[in-house]
Amino acid sequence: MSFAKTPEPPYYAVIFTSTRTAVDEGYHEVADRMVALAGRQPGFLGVESTRGAEGLGITVSYWSSLEAIAAWKAHAEHRVAQAKGHETWYEHFETRIARVERAYSGPGPR
Amino acid sequence: MSFAKTPEPPYYAVIFTSTRTAVDEGYHEVADRMVALAGRQPGFLGVESTRGAEGLGITVSYWSSLEAIAAWKAHAEHRVAQAKGHETWYEHFETRIARVERAYSGPGPR
Repeated sequence: MSFAKTPEPPYYAVIFTSTRTAVDEGYHEVADRMVALAGRQPGFLGVESTRGAEGLGITVSYWSSLEAIAAWKAHAEHRVAQAKGHETWYEHFETRIARVERAYSGPGPR
Repeated sequence: MSFAKTPEPPYYAVIFTSTRTAVDEGYHEVADRMVALAGRQPGFLGVESTRGAEGLGITVSYWSSLEAIAAWKAHAEHRVAQAKGHETWYEHFETRIARVERAYSGPGPR
C-alpha cells in the first residue's frame, strides 16, 4: 500500500490509530477484505496504512463527505468486522474524523 | 511512541505520509530532535508516528489551531530539517492539514 491519490481539498479523513492484541486469527483476511470493500463504497477517495515493528498502526482513509463516512461505518459487513475488532483484534484504538483543508506534496512521483 | 492524548475536538491534525530514500545519514537524529522540539511548541497536542516494513511512514501531529501549525512550519530549526528532508531523506511525501471534528476510542487504556 502506498500514497492515496486524493483530489484537491476539501475532503474528509478518518484517522484510525491502533495497537493489536496477540490474536491474529481472521485479522489479516478481514482487514484486506475491508480495504477492498471500502474501495467500492460511494465517496471513497483512497487509503494509506502502515504498522511499525513496535506495534502501532495508523490507517488514514479519505472520503468525499461525512455522509460517505457514516454510510461506510454503518455498512453491514463492516459492522461485523468492527465488532470483531473491538472484541478480539484491537488492544486499543483511536478514531478521529477530520476535514482536510489543505494539502501539498514533496519530491518525486507518488 | 504510542497514542496521543488529545482533548475533545475541535483541534487540528497534520497528516504526513512519506517514503524514505536510502540515505540514513542524520535522519534519525534530526527526526527525534524534531519530535522533541515540536513537543515544546505552543499549541502542540501530541503526535502518533509509525513506519512499516514496506517503507510507508505515517506521522500525525495534533495542534490547537492553524496558527500553531503555521508557526511550527516556520520555526527556523524545523525549516532547516524540512529542506534537508526534501532534498535528501524523503523519496516522496504528502502533507495534509485537517480539522478534527469528531473522535472516539476503543477497548482498554491508551
